Amino acid sequence: MAQSSCPAAQLAQYIGNNATSAAAAANLICNQFDAVTKQFAAVTEQYTDTRHAVDSTYLLFSAYLVFSMQLGFAMLCAGSVRAKNTMNIMLTNVLDAAAGGLFYYLFGFAFAFGSPSNGFIGRHFFGLSKVPSQAQDFDYSNFLYQWAFAIAAAGITSGSIAERTQFVAYLIYSSFLTGFVYPVVSHWFWSTNGWASAFNTGNLLFNSGVIDFAGSGVVHMVGGIAGLWGALIEGPRIGRFDHAGRAVALRGHSASLVVLGTFMLWFGWYGFNPGSFNKILVTYDGSGNYYGQWSAVGRTAVTTTLAGCTAALTTLFGKRILSGHWNVTDVCNGLLGGFAAITAGCSVVEPWAAIVCGFFASLVLIGCNKLAEIVNYDDPLEAAQLHGGCGAWGIIFTALFAKKEYVDQVYQSGRGYGLFMGGGGKLLAAHVIQILVITGWVSATMGPLFYVLSKMGLLRVSPEDELAGMDLTRHGGFAYAYEDDESHKHGIQLKRIEPNCASSTPTSV
Amino acid sequence: MAQSSCPAAQLAQYIGNNATSAAAAANLICNQFDAVTKQFAAVTEQYTDTRHAVDSTYLLFSAYLVFSMQLGFAMLCAGSVRAKNTMNIMLTNVLDAAAGGLFYYLFGFAFAFGSPSNGFIGRHFFGLSKVPSQAQDFDYSNFLYQWAFAIAAAGITSGSIAERTQFVAYLIYSSFLTGFVYPVVSHWFWSTNGWASAFNTGNLLFNSGVIDFAGSGVVHMVGGIAGLWGALIEGPRIGRFDHAGRAVALRGHSASLVVLGTFMLWFGWYGFNPGSFNKILVTYDGSGNYYGQWSAVGRTAVTTTLAGCTAALTTLFGKRILSGHWNVTDVCNGLLGGFAAITAGCSVVEPWAAIVCGFFASLVLIGCNKLAEIVNYDDPLEAAQLHGGCGAWGIIFTALFAKKEYVDQVYQSGRGYGLFMGGGGKLLAAHVIQILVITGWVSATMGPLFYVLSKMGLLRVSPEDELAGMDLTRHGGFAYAYEDDESHKHGIQLKRIEPNCASSTPTSV
Amino acid sequence: MAQSSCPAAQLAQYIGNNATSAAAAANLICNQFDAVTKQFAAVTEQYTDTRHAVDSTYLLFSAYLVFSMQLGFAMLCAGSVRAKNTMNIMLTNVLDAAAGGLFYYLFGFAFAFGSPSNGFIGRHFFGLSKVPSQAQDFDYSNFLYQWAFAIAAAGITSGSIAERTQFVAYLIYSSFLTGFVYPVVSHWFWSTNGWASAFNTGNLLFNSGVIDFAGSGVVHMVGGIAGLWGALIEGPRIGRFDHAGRAVALRGHSASLVVLGTFMLWFGWYGFNPGSFNKILVTYDGSGNYYGQWSAVGRTAVTTTLAGCTAALTTLFGKRILSGHWNVTDVCNGLLGGFAAITAGCSVVEPWAAIVCGFFASLVLIGCNKLAEIVNYDDPLEAAQLHGGCGAWGIIFTALFAKKEYVDQVYQSGRGYGLFMGGGGKLLAAHVIQILVITGWVSATMGPLFYVLSKMGLLRVSPEDELAGMDLTRHGGFAYAYEDDESHKHGIQLKRIEPNCASSTPTSV
Repeated sequence: MAQSSCPAAQLAQYIGNNATSAAAAANLICNQFDAVTKQFAAVTEQYTDTRHAVDSTYLLFSAYLVFSMQLGFAMLCAGSVRAKNTMNIMLTNVLDAAAGGLFYYLFGFAFAFGSPSNGFIGRHFFGLSKVPSQAQDFDYSNFLYQWAFAIAAAGITSGSIAERTQFVAYLIYSSFLTGFVYPVVSHWFWSTNGWASAFNTGNLLFNSGVIDFAGSGVVHMVGGIAGLWGALIEGPRIGRFDHAGRAVALRGHSASLVVLGTFMLWFGWYGFNPGSFNKILVTYDGSGNYYGQWSAVGRTAVTTTLAGCTAALTTLFGKRILSGHWNVTDVCNGLLGGFAAITAGCSVVEPWAAIVCGFFASLVLIGCNKLAEIVNYDDPLEAAQLHGGCGAWGIIFTALFAKKEYVDQVYQSGRGYGLFMGGGGKLLAAHVIQILVITGWVSATMGPLFYVLSKMGLLRVSPEDELAGMDLTRHGGFAYAYEDDESHKHGIQLKRIEPNCASSTPTSV
Repeated sequence: MAQSSCPAAQLAQYIGNNATSAAAAANLICNQFDAVTKQFAAVTEQYTDTRHAVDSTYLLFSAYLVFSMQLGFAMLCAGSVRAKNTMNIMLTNVLDAAAGGLFYYLFGFAFAFGSPSNGFIGRHFFGLSKVPSQAQDFDYSNFLYQWAFAIAAAGITSGSIAERTQFVAYLIYSSFLTGFVYPVVSHWFWSTNGWASAFNTGNLLFNSGVIDFAGSGVVHMVGGIAGLWGALIEGPRIGRFDHAGRAVALRGHSASLVVLGTFMLWFGWYGFNPGSFNKILVTYDGSGNYYGQWSAVGRTAVTTTLAGCTAALTTLFGKRILSGHWNVTDVCNGLLGGFAAITAGCSVVEPWAAIVCGFFASLVLIGCNKLAEIVNYDDPLEAAQLHGGCGAWGIIFTALFAKKEYVDQVYQSGRGYGLFMGGGGKLLAAHVIQILVITGWVSATMGPLFYVLSKMGLLRVSPEDELAGMDLTRHGGFAYAYEDDESHKHGIQLKRIEPNCASSTPTSV
Repeated sequence: MAQSSCPAAQLAQYIGNNATSAAAAANLICNQFDAVTKQFAAVTEQYTDTRHAVDSTYLLFSAYLVFSMQLGFAMLCAGSVRAKNTMNIMLTNVLDAAAGGLFYYLFGFAFAFGSPSNGFIGRHFFGLSKVPSQAQDFDYSNFLYQWAFAIAAAGITSGSIAERTQFVAYLIYSSFLTGFVYPVVSHWFWSTNGWASAFNTGNLLFNSGVIDFAGSGVVHMVGGIAGLWGALIEGPRIGRFDHAGRAVALRGHSASLVVLGTFMLWFGWYGFNPGSFNKILVTYDGSGNYYGQWSAVGRTAVTTTLAGCTAALTTLFGKRILSGHWNVTDVCNGLLGGFAAITAGCSVVEPWAAIVCGFFASLVLIGCNKLAEIVNYDDPLEAAQLHGGCGAWGIIFTALFAKKEYVDQVYQSGRGYGLFMGGGGKLLAAHVIQILVITGWVSATMGPLFYVLSKMGLLRVSPEDELAGMDLTRHGGFAYAYEDDESHKHGIQLKRIEPNCASSTPTSV
């Protein structure tokens, strides 16, 4: 394939001892070198192309995985409520994604990542104008990925207020949360201009910045605290606590859907956490090494897995001791609590530390649920406890266990790292601030919103509707119809699943 | 790592003033350059390898996503029919994939993409012989991707004729559609030899060719029109219209399955639309630029998302106005209608145009459904309306809104583009032709097939079987058994879900 | 972009006829070449980076797909058991993944792939110490991928012993299987030190080694034979065989979940089989060719698809002939049997051979099921028959149909290949040995374990618990509650799905 392109005979004529031939020889040699230089430039550009293609492939498929979490949420929520409210909760999940798509396109993405901007809120990229932007390194794939995150936050909140909230209230708070409240928080902690962002190129908070890699705070706490206010203002579902204030289990109608949703969320979390690197073709210690961002991505998938697994096992045995049986839906929630907790630090901790994270996440969730019962707080999906409580634990955990080497690689050298890893208290201070400001911001925005909706009579459905089920009164009927009218006339086998009505055994069975 | 490989001392001896040393010097220098040339050739080959690996990874995972739509179809269909026909409809979905796999391997792929060929039908690659083919740029991954598309078309049709069609009829039409009807259409519009293909290297239809990027026409209209004929010839299900011709809702048995299926289809559509680029490592304006096919892939994912989201929201409010309630299954259908519409133009329109596309797709679907009721057309999945109607709208939409710059990049320069974008009517003319020929071809092949099956008594099940449910009579029993016989003897909690059979027919039904 | 970097004027001064200028010229030229050499070294390193990133992306997303099979197993199992045991079986599936995560991290991965080691068991990488390891080419992504495989084996076994096994027994055998029994087998056949591994760099078994590419033996037979012993020792479920020993169908409670699970497994199998290459950016005949490992990956996806499709169709018609109806759950099992069989040889056989594989896999499954009925063996998921029987057939099939060219590419030149392809009996001998040692090893470890558990009264639940359902007695209640108490008071539409109870309150409620 490669043939000699160098004119040796011609060159030999020139390499003589007079000025003319010397100049010709020099030109000839140099032309060759110039061609080589040009070829290297072309090769470099090909490498740039390759990086774009590889990183885009990585980010897009990660975005698809994160999107699949919306399916997970929908099924988890559906299975966790009573059959009579299934249509309602599933519609909210579909709408999170749909309304979120429009609002995040119109202004959410701009508020979050529009750059250059101030530290509080972004102000570019409305309606994706000027995207793709080489200067800000934002391509369409970045928007898609961030949109999938935004709708996750709204999905969390919908769980807290399930089974008693008017659909119109849902439309209002969901748009507000996806379009404004959440984008502002993500601007603070993730954009290059955010006042508390570890990517801030100017002043770093406590000379460290907040390491909330995939959003234990930015996504999970935001969704959980919004849900907390909604559920507090609405009050518990009818029948959730008896007259003496004792908790009565209002079991969800399908554990199969709960498990289906949990596994889909687990699957999608591999887009959520490892995907948050955005790029995979990045070297750490110079090119040509075995270890690079691709390894860190894999490690992040491993820490995520181990935290969830540990939390699930801890919950299994913990609840067995507390309640006397092996409960799969509790294990599912424990698992998700472990994921919510590891999300902040997944990229900067060792696998063994992820086990510590998951173990305590389970205890935090059990404790929060106990507390919720005591104060008669009703959250059908345990969303405030799980995403709020375990999310907050994850933020603290990261400040304790972040490893210097990994922080240096994933962020930059010289940042604060884990207190227990010898990094001092800088990162912990920043992370306490994060918990406080997220709690404050979401409370200050979503609390009043829910309160006003409640005062206007737009928040909670009537007791009649609640007892009958919102599906019947608001959504055109129930989600299920396992038998239809004609079948009765013909006595089909489905009847065998029905009670033994004393006198007239169906003859046609 | 890099050590000097250039023999400077030796070279210095030669660069003298006699012919011998000049020749030696020249040889030496030129050997060096030759080695460089060889190394560049090796680097170029490595880049070729990399492109193959990156593009194959991209295409294969896209194919897996498209395949997951079969799961989506199965669940959407299952949830949309009555419980007594669930086994039947799910079996058809499994068989689409299975029979489709064999037929598409044996001849479908050859009819569609066998090249070189005439403009009407392909004639190479039967049984994947001569694949991989460098000349035609077809690897195994291309086959897998196209197979996943082929089975989607058959899946669409199965929805239209659900709940009343003999299984043997299903086997026959499905094989015919996947193995012949659909491959021929895809040959026309997608192969390099197709008479209306925008990839045609010879004569372009109206000097433009049809831009049906991922198949609003090739897949969705084909499946929808096939379904239309099947449903027309079979007639409505028993009870679908009362004696006065008024529509009676025959609700599907599980909205949870409908939502599950819809979200899976959404997930899979990210393989369907962005995946249709086949390759991601392609530059547009020369190497080294931030903008390339990877950006166009991301933009396609964004336009797809926005069209679906807009259609879902439009349907939500539209149906709320028309019917008075917030209906999740209608929203799901609206969403899918938006996707079916944007599929043709997803790669060549701006995100804002996708919003226009989705808005009108929702109206088209609502209108088609209204029309279907008026003419007493019964399509359990609204498949003809959704895939046929919205698919046709998507073809027109593309001819109106395709942007010159994007058409130039994704296809080639000098083609027709959107009428509203200043591109004149060439593309619109080609697209009107597309709608007409697809309608004609599918009608001319599938119409007679369904008619003959009907005349032979092989199409529709007997009224008795239809009332009893096909699962009982044809498929060995019903899909569900939530309670078994032993449990009755022990009085378990599942009984609580059953009626209070006090004394009489429940008055509150 | 590329400007001349070669100082022609300066060079011309030197190319003269005295020693000084000659030395200067030579140095100058050589410095240029040295710079070129350095640049090539940088380019080579960039290529190395690219390979790591591309291969890691490929392996990680494949691992996510394999993980999604756990969701598939959970749904398949749930749908295949009676409603009263749904919580139980789903909990075992969640725990496979969770407990498997911890045990495989702590020692399973070390036993399997710890290297250097002896041929029987590995002894490095406990708790992922020294991972990533350049020497052994093990990154975190390899661990994640192998973990997803390990939990699949345990998931298979849980199907065999469903509906009658104490949860504590499940915890014990699952940990033992994932943490020890399975890792040892995978060490034998897949590690570079394994005594029967085709990757063994020293002595190859029969100068060939075993080609069990993705684990028809290592995963499926191991899970199936473990299940066989468990089910044999426990005995059939109550009511599975009548007093005359005739089989009575104990139908699963939801065919929708069975189909959902089957499609998820199909989806995940694209990670299982093609993903087992681990890398995609590998050339076969030198760089720059159209054909490389990316093509082999695609071909593997195609053979997998065709084997499953053929097995599904064969089962459809076979069961139609045998039982008289078209049964979707049987077709699902047939499909999975085809996949289990092609798993060993998927990368080294032609697509047409995959059709042969799938055809016989279906017959093997039908035969094994017939045999199981005759000997009164009860396996609720047909797991031993499907994964054990079809897995064993797949091992034999590979030894018959492996193609020389593909074996040379995927493994190394000079190995044994298929008997029917002219490769002689070496590979067949090795594969018979594989079946024998897997059967022996799993029987020798899992058989005694189940026996001891049984003798200790820890294996099978009491007849009372079995009749009532384990969900009620052990897991805190049933999986489903489609109607709640309040709804009765208000007479909602769900009532319409219930029977027309003629006269009296059911006494058994």
